[in-house]
Amino acid sequence: MTPAAGRPGAWMAAETAEQPAVLAGLLSGRVGIDEVVQTVRAYRPHTVMFAARGSSDNAALYGSYLVQTILGVASGLCSPSTTTVYGARPDLHGVLFVTVSQSGTSPDLVESTRVAEECGALTVAVTNDPTSALAEVAAHVVDVHAGVEHAVAATKSYTAELLALYLLVAGAAGRLDRESLAALPDAAAGTLDASVAAEALAAKYRTVDRVVVTARGYSYPTAREAALKLMETCYLSAHPFSGADLLHGPLAMVDADVPVIAVATPGRSGRAMEPVVERLRGLGCDPLLVGPADGLPVVTDGIVEELWPVVEILPLQRLARRMAADRGLDPDHPRGLRKITQTR
Amino acid sequence: MTPAAGRPGAWMAAETAEQPAVLAGLLSGRVGIDEVVQTVRAYRPHTVMFAARGSSDNAALYGSYLVQTILGVASGLCSPSTTTVYGARPDLHGVLFVTVSQSGTSPDLVESTRVAEECGALTVAVTNDPTSALAEVAAHVVDVHAGVEHAVAATKSYTAELLALYLLVAGAAGRLDRESLAALPDAAAGTLDASVAAEALAAKYRTVDRVVVTARGYSYPTAREAALKLMETCYLSAHPFSGADLLHGPLAMVDADVPVIAVATPGRSGRAMEPVVERLRGLGCDPLLVGPADGLPVVTDGIVEELWPVVEILPLQRLARRMAADRGLDPDHPRGLRKITQTR
Repeated sequence: MTPAAGRPGAWMAAETAEQPAVLAGLLSGRVGIDEVVQTVRAYRPHTVMFAARGSSDNAALYGSYLVQTILGVASGLCSPSTTTVYGARPDLHGVLFVTVSQSGTSPDLVESTRVAEECGALTVAVTNDPTSALAEVAAHVVDVHAGVEHAVAATKSYTAELLALYLLVAGAAGRLDRESLAALPDAAAGTLDASVAAEALAAKYRTVDRVVVTARGYSYPTAREAALKLMETCYLSAHPFSGADLLHGPLAMVDADVPVIAVATPGRSGRAMEPVVERLRGLGCDPLLVGPADGLPVVTDGIVEELWPVVEILPLQRLARRMAADRGLDPDHPRGLRKITQTR
Repeated sequence: MTPAAGRPGAWMAAETAEQPAVLAGLLSGRVGIDEVVQTVRAYRPHTVMFAARGSSDNAALYGSYLVQTILGVASGLCSPSTTTVYGARPDLHGVLFVTVSQSGTSPDLVESTRVAEECGALTVAVTNDPTSALAEVAAHVVDVHAGVEHAVAATKSYTAELLALYLLVAGAAGRLDRESLAALPDAAAGTLDASVAAEALAAKYRTVDRVVVTARGYSYPTAREAALKLMETCYLSAHPFSGADLLHGPLAMVDADVPVIAVATPGRSGRAMEPVVERLRGLGCDPLLVGPADGLPVVTDGIVEELWPVVEILPLQRLARRMAADRGLDPDHPRGLRKITQTR
């Protein structure tokens, strides 16, 4: 797919639209993942640690929820600086160490993975580049097969990472929901079709410079990723909060003038958001709901809740791109950013 | 200590000033902690998981750095919603599960701790109330002895939690730095004395509505806690970013008009911040540095880097309180917040 040359955000629009096909492609060609799944099953990790940055860090947070709820062992996100800044060499025998990175090039992630391998962990790289330095140092590689991503703002690589992590973790737990997987590409296409509403909403947000995005449970990584998209593409001050953490302090900065986006697809996480939405309304806010039909609808027919994050982010990607375009900004090339970020 | 009745922020000012005495008190009376340390040493956890919300979540992040670098095992922050929303029952044998909560009352933290105990973990509550519901369900309790905290914006309970976590984790590793501990209350007092500079700086920030706070390594929890203080007390849009994550996207929202606070006390984390500060300056920002003598100085003489977070937050607490006062706000009673937050 080649977008109209030079039109701002053309790559982001094209890559957003490509997602149903990317998901279908990953599902049909996942032989490589199945081998890694068998290795993880045999290893029986007592703990799964994730390392990642940026959008991939939001995917890793999703992975950590999957591990805790489906695989049923301890899990968390590690801080690469413990290794690269402080030289930590923890005992990681019995630990599965999963590094998530679109490009697979960030030196701190490569070094953390190398050290984790040296410290006894089983290491897996989840990446869009199976020839990257990260893939080189990890014992096993899951290729997310998103194809080349041109826009600096990640879209298709993010949802491909989510799906790859589901295939890895739910696969290792022997709990893949095959019906949901089969329905996923169509649900993504349906959600994108329904997200014309996002384009209309963008106009409403034309002059805001601050947004709060909130969600709970599986939808919390969606809130973080949506806020990151808005920061990257619209240079907005966008705050993501777990609905629970919002009530522990940051709520003070919310008033009727601060637009709030609440991811609340009807289900367990949506129900957990009800008291949060109620508190927000009590403060005079009228939160934009993502999920329910009267907000930004998300198609989840026949799909287990664990896979909803793959579709929930789609209308928010559209909203961010359109808001950027309305502001005359180019989300394919945000100021101050490069596609590949080198941190140590 | 009783602050002048009714003066806005009087409690926060008094409780900020109390911190050297609180730290000294915790150090002199830590018999209870030593017993828990012995239990943890005997248990030899393969992983340490933390659960917390709000300011205590920032303390827990500090605890997780300590575990990875000093105790040398896997560590992470768990998401209470995996238990309370999705009913996860992970196998936590061999896991030390540490819940950090000033009040010890939040239902999701109490329930997560109860379930962790049931799932095989060794559970420890780090709390300011040893008679709380949390202390009741945890197998062991570390009382942070901060005394009653009146201001909604946590100050002394936060630094007391940091010190208690150091005593617990470095103690369990057999790596307590006793000289640093002995020097800590005076360093805190010295840092508070030097923080008059923060009062002057507050005037400069009188009209800003957006702030970015950045740091790396051990100082990253400080950046998060400083941002939370600014959100709670000044209703500012304050973003905390790890210096590494900032470069992976959010940098786009920074321009010369956005004030940036960079915690960069000279040391390993300060050095890791140098390329970040350089990039910021390249964008026309003039970041306020916390740590170096020409910024907001922090007294760290004779104290190992692992304990710097206990003093680094002090000038930022002062800055937040003064900025709130300049805006006519009362940090003791921020709008929309209660001292004890109940989340499920």
